[in-house]
Amino acid sequence: MAKINKLCVIGVGLIGGSLAIALRNAGYCAEVIGAGRNAERLQVAKDLGVVDSFSTDIAEAVADADMVFVAVPMGAMAAIFQQIDNHLKPGAIITDGGSAKSSVMKDAKLHLKRSYSQFVAGHPIAGTEQSGVEAAFGELFQNRRVIITPTYDTNKRAAEKVADMWKAAGAEVETMSALHHDDVLAGTSHLPHLLAYGLVNCLFESNNSESFFKYAAGGFRDFTRIASSDPVMWRDICLSNKESLLDILSLYQTELDMLKEAIAKDDADQLLSYFDSAKTSRDKFKF
Amino acid sequence: MAKINKLCVIGVGLIGGSLAIALRNAGYCAEVIGAGRNAERLQVAKDLGVVDSFSTDIAEAVADADMVFVAVPMGAMAAIFQQIDNHLKPGAIITDGGSAKSSVMKDAKLHLKRSYSQFVAGHPIAGTEQSGVEAAFGELFQNRRVIITPTYDTNKRAAEKVADMWKAAGAEVETMSALHHDDVLAGTSHLPHLLAYGLVNCLFESNNSESFFKYAAGGFRDFTRIASSDPVMWRDICLSNKESLLDILSLYQTELDMLKEAIAKDDADQLLSYFDSAKTSRDKFKF
Repeated sequence: MAKINKLCVIGVGLIGGSLAIALRNAGYCAEVIGAGRNAERLQVAKDLGVVDSFSTDIAEAVADADMVFVAVPMGAMAAIFQQIDNHLKPGAIITDGGSAKSSVMKDAKLHLKRSYSQFVAGHPIAGTEQSGVEAAFGELFQNRRVIITPTYDTNKRAAEKVADMWKAAGAEVETMSALHHDDVLAGTSHLPHLLAYGLVNCLFESNNSESFFKYAAGGFRDFTRIASSDPVMWRDICLSNKESLLDILSLYQTELDMLKEAIAKDDADQLLSYFDSAKTSRDKFKF
Repeated sequence: MAKINKLCVIGVGLIGGSLAIALRNAGYCAEVIGAGRNAERLQVAKDLGVVDSFSTDIAEAVADADMVFVAVPMGAMAAIFQQIDNHLKPGAIITDGGSAKSSVMKDAKLHLKRSYSQFVAGHPIAGTEQSGVEAAFGELFQNRRVIITPTYDTNKRAAEKVADMWKAAGAEVETMSALHHDDVLAGTSHLPHLLAYGLVNCLFESNNSESFFKYAAGGFRDFTRIASSDPVMWRDICLSNKESLLDILSLYQTELDMLKEAIAKDDADQLLSYFDSAKTSRDKFKF
């Protein structure tokens, strides 16, 4: 018997669509309704078999769902919470997939007046530089980590159900504070995206842009792959995780200043020990 | 009939070893002698069939070679040129694989007193984050670009022979000035390496280093893959391409300052247009 009778996915893109597929494949979910603003895009999701039905009326879409997954850019979270709060069925659980958690929890606290204790903030650490439901696939979360950040106010059973759902989708689930999550993600994900976007613009707005294009090789390709990520999503992530991101960005700028000085001074020893220690750290990763 | 009777590879690592394998596979080269400081490592190259013979006496190794490929870290180029100059056979051609060309050409001009006109600076834009002859493979240069930077002083026939050799190894060969090469590579390769080394150290020297390690995902993996590159090689590249690298690094720092300000000011429009333009540029790459 399916553990979720009706799942409502608000924002049926790469993440929302992949969760729907994974849960359906696992027999964990009987029915999926998609919700969003764009009927054409939702029709694509239906045609692909990702959702059973859809609605552009979000209040209507959540009405008899027992689990609501909000997978929209973070700037849209507050408005979604506002629209659904009075229309959720009693006991319905709400969770999200946003890449920063403190801001989503603030939005939820402010706008989910009736159902705040049923809200469990979550973040699947998975994705590709693609977006849209066409890019969704059921294995996206296999062996990937999902972080949930319940608080003292969160209904324990709701948190367990959200964890259970992600496990059914193939993920490992871990619990931590929203603040810790935001610091960690600022370093491992948000800063690298900023750096990649910055490098692409730095090179392609320059006088040498044509040559840069022509002679870019594998290192550049891998380094900047993430600069193809969705701009709206990343704008919202930067604004939603502002403090943590500015902190780590300042630390990073200090590293660059140090490197610049070492190069300017021809400090061979300093450069070698710097690169050595980075290589040692990086080699420990066995992805 | 083989076009090169005897190739001497000084520094039989990823690049030197791969060229030897590729030329042998193409039937372009009859015999390969490896040279370097470390007899054990050269023995590995021989055991792997990458070289026919080897010597730790570099003067001896080049004595009857008609092509000498110097594939050592750039800081070692000057000393190699000094050691071989009096021992090359008349008409022997010398080329290199260094990632910065102005400094190598300066070294060659200074130390290749008898054979400077036979020196053709070159740079295969290929590689992996691996190093050592065990990582060498004959397809490394297939459809990759090799840039050669001959000058007014360079013997035309020598330049043609070097180009011909790289084509036999599967590469496309292009000619440009050393200065232009160095600016282009500073942007597409040297700066990305610096940024990746910097990110790894920034994260792994911090208080959150354990969590950073644990939750790093695909974006981080790809972004920092190049931070596993050989530290000695990259120290030398930074010092050898100092001016171009400092120029582009300063431009990059301006980009980060701008991004930082936009985030600090919650400038959503600026961030969106910045990310949009980066995505548009990056999406044009079809690697």
